[in-house]
Amino acid sequence: MKKTVQTAIVGVTGYAGAELARLLLHHPRLHGKPPVFAGRVEGKDLERGGIPLAEIHPQLAGHDGSGNLKLEPFSWELLAERGVDVLFLATPHELSREWVPEALKRGLRVIDLSGAWRLTDGANRAVYAFEDKDAEQAAATQAQAIYGLPELHRKQIAGARLVANPGCYATSVILPLRPLVAAGLIDLEHGIVADAKSGVSGAGKVPTAKTHFMYAADNLSAYGVFAHRHTGELLEQIGIASEQIVFTPHLLPIPRGILSTIYVRFKKAQTRECVAEVYREFFAGSPMVRLYEKALPQIQYSVHTNYADIGFQLDAGGKRAVIVSCLDNLLKGAAGQAVQNLNVIEGWPESEGLL
Amino acid sequence: MKKTVQTAIVGVTGYAGAELARLLLHHPRLHGKPPVFAGRVEGKDLERGGIPLAEIHPQLAGHDGSGNLKLEPFSWELLAERGVDVLFLATPHELSREWVPEALKRGLRVIDLSGAWRLTDGANRAVYAFEDKDAEQAAATQAQAIYGLPELHRKQIAGARLVANPGCYATSVILPLRPLVAAGLIDLEHGIVADAKSGVSGAGKVPTAKTHFMYAADNLSAYGVFAHRHTGELLEQIGIASEQIVFTPHLLPIPRGILSTIYVRFKKAQTRECVAEVYREFFAGSPMVRLYEKALPQIQYSVHTNYADIGFQLDAGGKRAVIVSCLDNLLKGAAGQAVQNLNVIEGWPESEGLL
Amino acid sequence: MKKTVQTAIVGVTGYAGAELARLLLHHPRLHGKPPVFAGRVEGKDLERGGIPLAEIHPQLAGHDGSGNLKLEPFSWELLAERGVDVLFLATPHELSREWVPEALKRGLRVIDLSGAWRLTDGANRAVYAFEDKDAEQAAATQAQAIYGLPELHRKQIAGARLVANPGCYATSVILPLRPLVAAGLIDLEHGIVADAKSGVSGAGKVPTAKTHFMYAADNLSAYGVFAHRHTGELLEQIGIASEQIVFTPHLLPIPRGILSTIYVRFKKAQTRECVAEVYREFFAGSPMVRLYEKALPQIQYSVHTNYADIGFQLDAGGKRAVIVSCLDNLLKGAAGQAVQNLNVIEGWPESEGLL
Amino acid sequence: MKKTVQTAIVGVTGYAGAELARLLLHHPRLHGKPPVFAGRVEGKDLERGGIPLAEIHPQLAGHDGSGNLKLEPFSWELLAERGVDVLFLATPHELSREWVPEALKRGLRVIDLSGAWRLTDGANRAVYAFEDKDAEQAAATQAQAIYGLPELHRKQIAGARLVANPGCYATSVILPLRPLVAAGLIDLEHGIVADAKSGVSGAGKVPTAKTHFMYAADNLSAYGVFAHRHTGELLEQIGIASEQIVFTPHLLPIPRGILSTIYVRFKKAQTRECVAEVYREFFAGSPMVRLYEKALPQIQYSVHTNYADIGFQLDAGGKRAVIVSCLDNLLKGAAGQAVQNLNVIEGWPESEGLL
Repeated sequence: MKKTVQTAIVGVTGYAGAELARLLLHHPRLHGKPPVFAGRVEGKDLERGGIPLAEIHPQLAGHDGSGNLKLEPFSWELLAERGVDVLFLATPHELSREWVPEALKRGLRVIDLSGAWRLTDGANRAVYAFEDKDAEQAAATQAQAIYGLPELHRKQIAGARLVANPGCYATSVILPLRPLVAAGLIDLEHGIVADAKSGVSGAGKVPTAKTHFMYAADNLSAYGVFAHRHTGELLEQIGIASEQIVFTPHLLPIPRGILSTIYVRFKKAQTRECVAEVYREFFAGSPMVRLYEKALPQIQYSVHTNYADIGFQLDAGGKRAVIVSCLDNLLKGAAGQAVQNLNVIEGWPESEGLL
Repeated sequence: MKKTVQTAIVGVTGYAGAELARLLLHHPRLHGKPPVFAGRVEGKDLERGGIPLAEIHPQLAGHDGSGNLKLEPFSWELLAERGVDVLFLATPHELSREWVPEALKRGLRVIDLSGAWRLTDGANRAVYAFEDKDAEQAAATQAQAIYGLPELHRKQIAGARLVANPGCYATSVILPLRPLVAAGLIDLEHGIVADAKSGVSGAGKVPTAKTHFMYAADNLSAYGVFAHRHTGELLEQIGIASEQIVFTPHLLPIPRGILSTIYVRFKKAQTRECVAEVYREFFAGSPMVRLYEKALPQIQYSVHTNYADIGFQLDAGGKRAVIVSCLDNLLKGAAGQAVQNLNVIEGWPESEGLL
Repeated sequence: MKKTVQTAIVGVTGYAGAELARLLLHHPRLHGKPPVFAGRVEGKDLERGGIPLAEIHPQLAGHDGSGNLKLEPFSWELLAERGVDVLFLATPHELSREWVPEALKRGLRVIDLSGAWRLTDGANRAVYAFEDKDAEQAAATQAQAIYGLPELHRKQIAGARLVANPGCYATSVILPLRPLVAAGLIDLEHGIVADAKSGVSGAGKVPTAKTHFMYAADNLSAYGVFAHRHTGELLEQIGIASEQIVFTPHLLPIPRGILSTIYVRFKKAQTRECVAEVYREFFAGSPMVRLYEKALPQIQYSVHTNYADIGFQLDAGGKRAVIVSCLDNLLKGAAGQAVQNLNVIEGWPESEGLL
Repeated sequence: MKKTVQTAIVGVTGYAGAELARLLLHHPRLHGKPPVFAGRVEGKDLERGGIPLAEIHPQLAGHDGSGNLKLEPFSWELLAERGVDVLFLATPHELSREWVPEALKRGLRVIDLSGAWRLTDGANRAVYAFEDKDAEQAAATQAQAIYGLPELHRKQIAGARLVANPGCYATSVILPLRPLVAAGLIDLEHGIVADAKSGVSGAGKVPTAKTHFMYAADNLSAYGVFAHRHTGELLEQIGIASEQIVFTPHLLPIPRGILSTIYVRFKKAQTRECVAEVYREFFAGSPMVRLYEKALPQIQYSVHTNYADIGFQLDAGGKRAVIVSCLDNLLKGAAGQAVQNLNVIEGWPESEGLL
């Protein structure tokens, strides 16, 4: 019998980290083996035995005895002592870029939630301005990284040492578009418009002018126009060129959830059934995608679930379509997808612990 | 000296009606002449002297003695007795369609906030399914109606007997697009995408499943895809054909405000300055449009003002642009625009009572 | 081995019903036995095989194959055919009052989420104005009803045929007060103030003027002052008289969650430790109550959990205390508590399926 | 004819400052004399002619030509050059404490929005921990300060050199309580409970963990229990002792507005009419207080107005009352009240520029 997997999370203090902790604490295959929580919390003395997780995330108190769980000071030795098999990094991009090669060297499997290893094309990666100390090692690591979208790369993820967990916006745009592009339906020369809207948790936990309640509440704003760093993921994973898509993110006055409205033109007129069939085939065997055959998805249907919801509507002539996709940016867009990747790696049912 | 204008509002119980009441009560040129409030309120006995306005809209209590103002039962005689010059209709489309011919016959000027008279093309108007009892009279009335967007039709509004106040979504899409289309910049064959998002007040005051707090809060949903009835206004006022635009409205979890994100392709590459100059020229003399030269507008900048805010960004090649326009759907999108039209009709400064 | 329990829900279309469906579908002890969903949905033809649950609650689609689950027309025969053991009623008060005697006669255990059977004192029950057709039968049924707050009545619930699931406000006020009153700490002559604030889901799914987004958003309002119908539950369960408490509910602009701020005066000065110890003893063995020893609870810590969170602060002299309690009105305040009661009845761990 | 007053604002970058700028720019008695805006903005070079106000507060662009208005580097010389008569300070408490004596020495009238000069009792003031360099001068300045609540101190404000503008919470608790305490109705020995709830703008513009959207949204939290620094103002202005009131503030998930629910016991039973009459008499001649004779006020009725709204309900016996007061924390709770004080000082109608 396979031994129980020991997980660890670095970066549990953030929003995605908290969701990841919750999911792993309740995952039926990890029963009795809570994750190791390692990291740093500014201004708190971690040396003296760590900080109770419940003090950082009061909502997690009481869940599976997490009152006793502590955030401990990170060290490679700690991970070794505890016999960690799979390391989840919910860390800043730069830190993930630096730590992953070391983690792989030490035999850990890594599921990295940052943007550090998602992009294979160096030009796309330039937006992160990584300064790799050992460029050769970085290139070798990059070559091992698998883009962690199970609906596209299930087989490769199963054997991966390093899974680069996708961006939240990217997931919400790639899933509805890849099937149609792969089937050759879309007139790429005409181009695609992806108008995406995200809740504030996507902007992270650090208090800034833009995450202030007074900035976000009762408001809507576009940002990163022609310049958002998830664009590279879209291009590589959908398989299109930069001039074939315009992607515009907006900040929604809600805590969580993403809705992307996507506008495409088909090469030739389609029927609703035809397009639906392309989706059905592509997502056969993908338990975490829900196709909406009648209505359109809404953010509140997917929030607090790990589903990516997809619906669409054609114009009267069948040449143009509006596609709507929704997901929870902290679950299918981050922590839930990371657990889904763990399930794929371990050969467990893909939705285990995610329903 | 011109005598003070006497106004009347029918439909003050709704959201736009309340804003209209507030604006007219404080309008410097109407000082001492509060509007006549006429209409019906279900289940209340209007016969016995009317209902205090402050009971319907507590927020209006105390403003200019409105504690004494009352909602009175509507009749043409009431309007005549009070010497009403200008009648504002914030009534359902069907009612406006029925009443306006009578109002004109009685010598009233009408500023109609409904969709009854906005569309000159019968095919576009079909979406409202009006059943005109006297088709000839309706056609004659329609021929007199001026689309009440001062930035486009200032001169005609000045002499109009009937002003058809524009839709809120329509205003937010026409203003940023008309100047560029008029200047011949946009590649119309390629088509335009207008992704619009509106606060809940746009859906009206009647409690429905979609205006329930639990439906709208923490949510975002697209609706009326390829089918919203403001589309006709867009086509007629921008001067484009149905297949040249896709317009998708969304319901935002905020009380008020609209943001439209508009995607266009230029016939040939443009510079930022070039596009800005087209806007500046078009809106010279339009005090209620603010051009954003550096940043992009956000909903909260325009809410509680009568401004339409417009900003844009070009891609690196100058061939594609993302245009963002914002306004308050109850002000520039309804009641504020109605007062702006009153100002134009009366020859007052266009922003009088609106700052 | 005990056979798996078969549950049924009447009233799954509401907010509490949806949460109850979600909890029962994922309950580990009910695996493979989804609840029977019975009821009526206006304007839909239930006769032809029922309505997919996923059409009523899209967020539930895909959960444990609920795509195949249907809402079926209610009949006692349906429940009998399916071998239902435990019937959850998330129905209007009047309907529960009418149906429960029949259900008991047919040998069903009932967990009733309405207010129909919560009050033993007829004077308190007068607020509901029930018109019992068979007063004797109603009295007999009432005598069997156990108030379903496990933290107070665990033993009686275990053997109950009819559990009257508590009101959401009531739960949030009884839990923090009962231990202190039972211990004789509170100066009841001085009286208690309970200032409670609830999210909008507490007001139900029917669209009304007060559940309109425009009414609730960006607002706060007090209601039911000196007159809220949960008051009777407070009095009976805390064991105090009407003049010993003032309870004021408020409508919060959030979807879910209740926070009650409770003001008490002690008979004699207390220390923090003393009060904490009273709580610890009372709630020993109550896994769904979390005591906050340092900070105060907040709504967002308890939302989407079944916990009741309690914290407090004393003034410098130790004579006055402010107690803060939080819970999710749809979980610990309704559906979660109902499942907790099921667990108690069946002898399962009290938090089973609730973490 | 009296010359037009020249105002200046220091601290226009904050929320109250922005509202104050808006009010003064549109004040009919200040027409053509915009305020001088002086201060510091970090990281911006103010030396080179200042920053456009519209860049700091885009919503103010276009209002009365504010596009040309600039934030200039503060100096006493600047104020002298521009002939400033009245100086509004929307600055941190410590800065106001330091600057006001100098301003008075230079002959300026000061309306200070901070907490620096509100408290006459040194013990109450201790919470601010001011370190006055010149204690004698500070005492002399304090002796001149008038608490700027016109409804209580209209006459003294009229002649004041220094007006200490009240706290927002304080205003919402003092106005409903002072009339009843002055009339001797309240049983003070029994004590008062003031449960207050405020929108997030009350917490200021600096991004912190508590003003993060994710902290405040969908949440409610109590804070400053038995320790909020507005308590001193309550005691001094209502005229009660510390043990006679419990005041608990809460953070509401809305941008602006305060609702205070206040619980009192009367010495002897009262009628509704009796209590109403006490209020009517006290607030006769106070145009910015609205008494609710039938319903209770709600936050949304007062937001975006300068009104303080007061309503109440008695229990059946007439011995206990729940009083509800609402106001906009940035207007009647800050900037609007400051303008009201200006009106009183200048002898203008008290609501001038505030409707």
